[in-house]
Order: sequence, then C-alpha cells, then structure tokens
Amino acid sequence: MTKWIYADHAATTPLSKAALAAMGPYLTEEFGNPSAVSAPGRRAKRALEEARETVADAFGAEPREIYFTSGGTEADNWVLRSAPRAAGAGRDEIVTDTVEHHAVLRTAGELRRAGRPVTVLGVDEFCRVTPEALRCALSAKTALVSVMAANNEVGTLMPVAELAAAARGSGAFFHTDAVQAAGHIPLDVKELGVDFLSFSSHKFGGPKGMGGLYVRGGIELEPLLFGGGQERGLRPGTENVAGAVGMAAALRESCRAMTEDMARVSALRDRLIRGVLRIPGSRLTGDPENRLPGNASFVFEGVEGEALLLLLDQRGICASSGSACSAGAAEPSHVLLAMGIAPELARGALRLTLGADNTGADVDAILGALPGIVARLRSVPAMGKGIGT
Amino acid sequence: MTKWIYADHAATTPLSKAALAAMGPYLTEEFGNPSAVSAPGRRAKRALEEARETVADAFGAEPREIYFTSGGTEADNWVLRSAPRAAGAGRDEIVTDTVEHHAVLRTAGELRRAGRPVTVLGVDEFCRVTPEALRCALSAKTALVSVMAANNEVGTLMPVAELAAAARGSGAFFHTDAVQAAGHIPLDVKELGVDFLSFSSHKFGGPKGMGGLYVRGGIELEPLLFGGGQERGLRPGTENVAGAVGMAAALRESCRAMTEDMARVSALRDRLIRGVLRIPGSRLTGDPENRLPGNASFVFEGVEGEALLLLLDQRGICASSGSACSAGAAEPSHVLLAMGIAPELARGALRLTLGADNTGADVDAILGALPGIVARLRSVPAMGKGIGT
Repeated sequence: MTKWIYADHAATTPLSKAALAAMGPYLTEEFGNPSAVSAPGRRAKRALEEARETVADAFGAEPREIYFTSGGTEADNWVLRSAPRAAGAGRDEIVTDTVEHHAVLRTAGELRRAGRPVTVLGVDEFCRVTPEALRCALSAKTALVSVMAANNEVGTLMPVAELAAAARGSGAFFHTDAVQAAGHIPLDVKELGVDFLSFSSHKFGGPKGMGGLYVRGGIELEPLLFGGGQERGLRPGTENVAGAVGMAAALRESCRAMTEDMARVSALRDRLIRGVLRIPGSRLTGDPENRLPGNASFVFEGVEGEALLLLLDQRGICASSGSACSAGAAEPSHVLLAMGIAPELARGALRLTLGADNTGADVDAILGALPGIVARLRSVPAMGKGIGT
Repeated sequence: MTKWIYADHAATTPLSKAALAAMGPYLTEEFGNPSAVSAPGRRAKRALEEARETVADAFGAEPREIYFTSGGTEADNWVLRSAPRAAGAGRDEIVTDTVEHHAVLRTAGELRRAGRPVTVLGVDEFCRVTPEALRCALSAKTALVSVMAANNEVGTLMPVAELAAAARGSGAFFHTDAVQAAGHIPLDVKELGVDFLSFSSHKFGGPKGMGGLYVRGGIELEPLLFGGGQERGLRPGTENVAGAVGMAAALRESCRAMTEDMARVSALRDRLIRGVLRIPGSRLTGDPENRLPGNASFVFEGVEGEALLLLLDQRGICASSGSACSAGAAEPSHVLLAMGIAPELARGALRLTLGADNTGADVDAILGALPGIVARLRSVPAMGKGIGT
C-alpha cells in the first residue's frame, strides 16, 4: 500500500501535537475534579478556566459566554430547545434551513412534532441561504434563526453576518452551527453579530467528545441537562478537563496559523478542484468562490459514491461521499438534493476535505488515482452501482 | 509539604495506567471517525465496539444494551426523561428518593414542574431506601423507579436487587444510578434485575467526559439528543473513541482486581473509621455494614466541614465534605439531612474516600493529622465557623 492520504478532515481531524501535549498532565498527575476544594481540584479548575479564556479569545467572546459541552451535537440541541423559551413574548417560531447538519434539522423536527412552529428555508444552487429568503420568512413570531456558518458536505460559507443582522433586526435570536468553520476561517461573534455559536473540538485538531457553545452575555438560556452546579449551573456533569484543555490548545494553534493555513490549503484545494474537473462528467458542488479552504466536493455522472470511496480506500486515500454522520445511508444527500441536484447524480458524490497536514504530493496522488477509478467504475456498470449498496 | 494523600476517590479517580495506554493510539495515529467508511474509520469503529463488549461484559450485559454517553449526568437525564414514555399505558409516575445525586433529583424536579407526577421517598438513618417503603409507593401508575446503587456522600449500598424486584413486580421499570458503585463492587444487571444502569468513567479510573447507560434489550428508549445515526440512532454525535477505549480498559482492570481491591480497601477503610471515631464528638454517617469499600464519612460536632477541608489540604490531604458536585454550597448536605442528622451537625461533614492506590501509610497520615485539626478548629470557634463560608 502506498502512503496513506487523509482527505476527510471534515469528518474528523488528527489530534494536534499541541493539543496532545496540553492534555498530558490532565491525563496523568493533574486528575483533580474542578469542583473539589483541595489543591488538585483548584488546579484543575484553573486549567478549565484558562481553556475557557483561550476559546473565548478565539471567537472574540468573553470567557463567561463560553460553555463546554460534549460536542457540537449537544450544543446544537441545547440552543434549538432552549433559546426559543428565552425569546420575547409571542415569539415561538424557529427558522432554519434544509442544508443544516442533522443535529439541527432533527432537533427542529422533534420540536415541530411537539407543537413548535418551524420554518425550513431552501437554498440556492450554491447551497446558500440568502438574506432575502430569510427576510421573507421573519416575523414578529420568530424566536430563533439557526443557519450554519459553513456547510459540512459542500463547504459553502453562509452569509452569516447578513443573516444575523436580518434576524436580530426583526427581534429574533441568531444561532450559527460553526462546527465546520471554527478553527478554519475567522469567526468573531461580535463582527458576525450572532447570539449563539456551536463548535466541535475534533474538527479543528482537538479531541473527540468535546465542544462548546457561545451564549451572548445577557441571554438567560435554560440548561439542557440537569444535575450539579458545573458551568455556572447551566451544564452539569464533572468537567472533561483534559478535553477542554486539548480543545483550547488546538483552537489557539489553528487561529495562530489561520491566515497562512487558509492560503496554503485553499491553494491545494483549488489545484485539486481544477484537476478533478478535468474528469468528464464531473461537477463541483457548493459555492465556487465562498467555500471552506479545505473543501473540494463533487458529483460524478454514472458512478456510485460509495463504490468510489471503497476503491479510493484501497489506494490508501480516505475521503467521503456526503457527511460522515450519515455514511452508509442509502439515501442521496439531503444537501445535494436541496441544491437542485438530481437524485441519480447526487448518488455520485465525493467529498475531499484537506487540512493543514496535507501536501501537494497528496493532491498529486489523488489526482493520479481518481480518473482511473471513475473510468473503471463507469466501464463496469454493475460494479459502479453494486458495491456499497 | 508532606507526601500528597488523595482520599477523594468518590469525587474523581486518577486515570489508570491501563486506560491511558489503551487511549494512546486513539489520541495519535488512530484518529478516524467511526462513521467514516475508509480504513481508519473502520478501525475506530472496531475499537469502539470492542470497548462496548468490554463494558457489557463487566455488567453481565449484551454489547447492544450499552450506549456511550458524555458521563453519568447525561445517562441519568436520559433515563429519567425517556423511560416513562416507554412504560405501559396509564403509567406516568416516577418514584425516586431524596438521597439521589442531583443529576436524578433535579431532572425529576424539572419533570415534575412540567407536569409529570414524581414521588420522592425518604431514607432510614443509614441512608437506605427500604423495599417496604418502595412497595408502599408503587402503583399501577408507576412508570419508573430510580434508586442509586451506592450513595455518593455516605457510601451506603442500596438493596438494589430487592428494590428492582418490587418495581418490576408491579410493572414499572427500574433504573439505578451506579456511578459510585461501578468498578468498585460487583454489578450484574441480570442478577440485580435492573432495566437501566448509569455509569461514569472517571469514577473507576477512566477518563472524564465519558460514561454510559445500560438499557435492557427490548426496551425502546427515545433519544435525549437528536442528530446523526451514532449509537444505533439513540445517541448522536461523533463518538469519543479514546474515551470509550479508556473507560473500557479501566473498567476491565477494576473488575479483574475487584475481589482483592475490595478486601484491601475496605480493610484500610475500617482502620480509618476506627481511628477517626476515637476523636470525641465524631460520628460515622451511612450504613456501618453495607457501604462502599472506600467510603469513610463522618460528622464532627462543633466543626465546619469546609474549614476542616482547608486545614487537611494544607497538610496535603485531599478530602471533601459532601459531594464534589455541590462543593462550596452554603447549604448542609441534603443526604445528611434526609438521614435525620441535624443541620448544625451536618455542617461538620467529612468524606474520606479511598481507592486502590491508597496505602496503610496514607491512613496513618490522615489519622495523625485529623485529631489535631479538629481540636484546633474547636478551640478557635471563629476559625471553625469562619473559614470557607
């Protein structure tokens, strides 16, 4: 097997060396419970609060506005369920869109089943929720608007600042699921004008099982979980100290290197896109301009995405067809369908997502392997259709 | 400062060497997302499923009956909120007791506020919920009974098998919060006859931010969080692979050494209890016989528990006065009050919790320091009352 090439950074990223080093003490001698009053407890508490300051800094927030959670899914669930209750009188509606992560969409679906009004906006061909579409949907009943910062499948960057301004101008709260964007593009909660922002540690070089939620100061959000007094009474459970410290270290490193990484990774991505689009019957999905630095996503005519992945995997290339969270699902991606891509074509999706650890040689290797794989799958229709279903 | 003595294992435990070693690969090269279809994803998935088998084995359960969560609090919240809806027609009441952890008590309180009937049983002087008391509370309306396996403050072991038999005999589900018991005393879900069992990794040598829930096969529990299809659709969010692997390794090690550790730790505990009870005005709290191997908890007349902790801490001894989760709270422990201990006396609580890493020398050191500290606090009433409030 040739060198292993990881091009699935949107699914998860390697733990950064900085994160691992920062976690070390909290996985060994510094094991105190931050709620305990003795010395090891106080040191653990200090580490936790330093991690909170680092995370707050990364997003232009105050430490008291950052709450640690078990990941992006918990953060999304928390906002969707609790924020509408913190909205003004007469406001009970949630407005979101059809290309959100399932953590938002399915939570919204549950709330709708329980009787809460939910409006789900469509997107344009580039996977964008337009400010015009949002403005048409806003009313004096809108409690919360939830639109992601960047799409996890096609990498489209949403016009968050404009959307947030529209939502807040109408008196509604604005939440952005920034799970794919955090650590990869600049995100300043004040510049964006958002009330809530979700993030997930393992998408930017931090450990899995860790994430958080920014809650703008002054908003009284009810907890999602009940128990002890941790996280100022809003998120109970003994804190994952090593996780918080690792997440903070990874985020600080990502932010420090962001300008350089964005330039380098997006140059690699553009070379990858140009190369892949030379394959006949291929098409870029998502916004050609406003997309995540690492995201190169495509659809191929006459090819099954799952079969493509298996053959790439045999060549040591890790990629995905839709999102990792719905891998193996028989249905074509809801994101691609929402962009107007036909179901048959949407089945031929490939998502290549690069990170700071990728090199030009990785792009060369992918471009060396992919055309032959696509051609092979097309030449044996039973193979292209059969594998992976 | 003398050697550091950790006697606060009920708050949290050091990460075991076995756990750290098992986590190593999943914090470095094996960073795949278990939902991804490529090779690193499949290896991560395999590690996750092996961890599930190990955890299932430890509790006499099937792997498909184990769900990973972010900790005990999430597991408790999940059961309390979802299990009643899985109960038979006409069953909507929750029966629990007054000495549960706040993760159960406050969740039950929230449900009551939302309209669900909740009965909270008292305990006897040893902190036990008696089967007789439970039987009186059971009716055809009882959906779920939730009684902890061992109390987190005074270490009392509840008669879980008898309580579970009573609950299930009346057609209700039975849940036990085994956060303090798991890894410390034998727990077999079939022998105990429980439907749900919560556990928390960092209480038995695993990492923080990790735990789980046993759900008896055949019970259809609705999810607490909504999102991707992880954990068979019941607990979305990218899995904390390193956390699961570390928890499983710690639990396996705890179970292997359990018989030996129980004998050794309970002998140390008994020596500690005998020594402490020589201090005038001291009293053991909890059940003198049926208690966790490591728990030695007391109340002292005329002493503030918080002041006691600070002076012990100055001598390098880590302990706690109630539970870590409510450290710093001005109120005396709800557990001690429920056992009939007067509020004034309950303020003088000390919890010393030993683990497998403690030695006879640790017990000697505690017994060497404690009488003088108690005497000193009593001789300067302003000091005994003032510090820590």
